[in-house]
Formats: sequence, C-alpha cells, structure tokens
Amino acid sequence: MPKKVDHAQRRQEIADATLEAIASRGLDEVRMVDIARATEATTGQLVHYFPDKDAMLAAALDAIMARLIAHLAEPPAAGQSFIDAIAEALPIDAESRGEWRVWLQFTGRAMFNASFGPKHEHYYEQITDSIAAGLRDAIPPAKAAALADAVVAAIDGIGVRACLEPKAWPATRQKKLLAQMLRPMLAEAGIDESRILASWRR
Amino acid sequence: MPKKVDHAQRRQEIADATLEAIASRGLDEVRMVDIARATEATTGQLVHYFPDKDAMLAAALDAIMARLIAHLAEPPAAGQSFIDAIAEALPIDAESRGEWRVWLQFTGRAMFNASFGPKHEHYYEQITDSIAAGLRDAIPPAKAAALADAVVAAIDGIGVRACLEPKAWPATRQKKLLAQMLRPMLAEAGIDESRILASWRR
Repeated sequence: MPKKVDHAQRRQEIADATLEAIASRGLDEVRMVDIARATEATTGQLVHYFPDKDAMLAAALDAIMARLIAHLAEPPAAGQSFIDAIAEALPIDAESRGEWRVWLQFTGRAMFNASFGPKHEHYYEQITDSIAAGLRDAIPPAKAAALADAVVAAIDGIGVRACLEPKAWPATRQKKLLAQMLRPMLAEAGIDESRILASWRR
Repeated sequence: MPKKVDHAQRRQEIADATLEAIASRGLDEVRMVDIARATEATTGQLVHYFPDKDAMLAAALDAIMARLIAHLAEPPAAGQSFIDAIAEALPIDAESRGEWRVWLQFTGRAMFNASFGPKHEHYYEQITDSIAAGLRDAIPPAKAAALADAVVAAIDGIGVRACLEPKAWPATRQKKLLAQMLRPMLAEAGIDESRILASWRR
C-alpha cells in the first residue's frame, strides 16, 4: 500500500511546514500559497490534505502534542531529576518556542471552534495521565492526579509568560521558577524526586 | 471641556462592547458593524475611536487590565485569606471568564504584533509589583518578586486550562488547585497568610 504511506508522510511534511510558518509569522499571516511553496506543492494539491487554515493548525498541533506525549512517556535521562525532565516541556529552545507559539494561537481559536475543544481535553488528559503515571508508585492515585494538574498548570503559566516576554524569560529563569513552584509541593506530598524517578524508570 | 469627557466616555463604552463581543464570539467573527450596532453608532463614527480590530482588542485588554490592577491594589475583604484574594483573578464567573477569553486571544496576536509586546510587559510588571507589594513586609524584596512571579504563573496556568475546559474546571476546582500550588510555597518561604494580609492592609 505505497499510496497510503505516501499520503500520511506527505501530510506530516505539510503539517511540519505549517507549524514552522505559523510559529514564525502567526496564523493570520500564513497563506496556503506559502505552505505550498515550502513543501513544493501547488495549493490545489494542498487542499487534498487540508481544506483550510483551521485544519492546518489542528494538524500542526497534533504533531506538537504527539511529540510531547511520546517524550513524557520516555524514562528521564540518567542523572535527570523529575523537575529537569518536566522542564523539557517549557519553551526553552528555538524548536519548543515555535511549538508554544502555535499552541497559544490554537488556544485563542479553541474557545470558539467546536471541533478544537474536544482536542484540548483529549491532550490534557493524555499529558496529565502520563505525569500521574510517573507519580503513582510514590503517592495514591487521586493525589497523583491532583499533583499532575498542578505540574501542568505550572508549565502552562511559565510557558505563556515566556512566550509573551521571551527576552526576560530565558531557559534558566523558567527552570528556576518551575523548581520554585514544584519543589515545595513535592516535599509537602511527602515524596522525593529520586523515588518518583525510580518508579518512572520501571 | 465637555467634548473631551464625552470622547473618553464613548471610547470606554465602545471598548466594553468590544470586550463583550470578542469574549462571546471570538475576534475573527467580530465585525465593526456589530460593535456599531451594539453601541448605537455608525461604523464611520467608530473609526474615529478605533481604526481597526487590533486597536479594539487593545482597548478591550486595557479595560480588563485596569480593572484587575485596581482590584489587586485594594486591601482584601475582611476574613479573606491571601489565596482567596488572589483567586479572584481566576476565570470564576461569567464576567471574568469573558475577560480571560479576550486575554487569551490577545496573547495569540501579541507574539506577532510589535505594538502588543510592550503592552504585555507593562501589565505583567504592574501585576507582579502589586502582588510583591503585599508580600514585602513578610519577606525580602527579591524573594517577594520571585514569589509574585510564581503566583502569576499559577494563576495563568490554571486560568488557561479553565478557559479551554470550562465544564471540567468550575470555580471550586480552580481555587483548590491554586491553594494546592501556593500554600506549600508560602510555607516554605516562612510566611503565613495572616501576616501577608496584615501588611497588605496597612
């Protein structure tokens, strides 16, 4: 079935080009003709993959979230603390900053687009489940779920601010604030980072 | 100078109508003609106050932020804890949900609009200064500033999620998560809520 494989691969290429264009210029300034040029296609061919800008934005978000969720499911690198591992979800380099810029534009549209709402719920569920899974052996499931919500809120709050004030919020400042927010909560929950990581690695 | 007063008042009325329209329908669906109808003006008259949608969005944001900053500067109500007072900045009722929806749309545009960027920095500065002022007598200024950043990140993270999943995040769940995030940080900083409030009230 080479045709089907080609279609999925081509869709992915177009989604990646869309992600880059939206991240660098903003959704309102991106035209189908720009994406066509970037992927060496005609606009007529593009429409075969994505009927409109919203569909392109959704595909770019799917690509971002698939990467984030796959990353969260990996065991942390040796020597990495729980907070170090979580900090990788922040807009701390050019690639992740681009992804955050797309996500923030998506949030603005999601509130008024019936098909975007469920997408968000789906992704928040997968992300919090993945974080809670890393905490489950250290604390009871209900506590792990609540702590995962707090971790996600800390990441979102720091990430939004860093997107809006990129010069004032380099990676080091973002990570420091994340540690400041998470460490007391982890301590209060009676868990230490090494224990979380041991259960995550299993 | 009755004419000048009229102009400022009329601008405010139009900004409020814009806020409502953007919050309920989304920026992309709002047309000048809708705002004109809501404020009993002609589109020609509107252009005298706001040249385009971005200017209307900026005015709506200014109205929101002016209210938030004035609110933060007020001493908390009797019997209110620090966390209770801060929780009032969350999207916990119809009015604040509308304001958050406008703010989230603004963030999506701010990243690509040269005139919006400095506006954000200005507002973040005023908000964190106001929160830090309430903490200054309890802890050293540098610690108060860092704690204010953490408070703002918690608010932003919880607020964004509540905007995207409004049914799953009623006011009680938002406040509970805020307390879960802030209480251990306040305790670790060696301050209790009543002491913060005493200095805030002075």
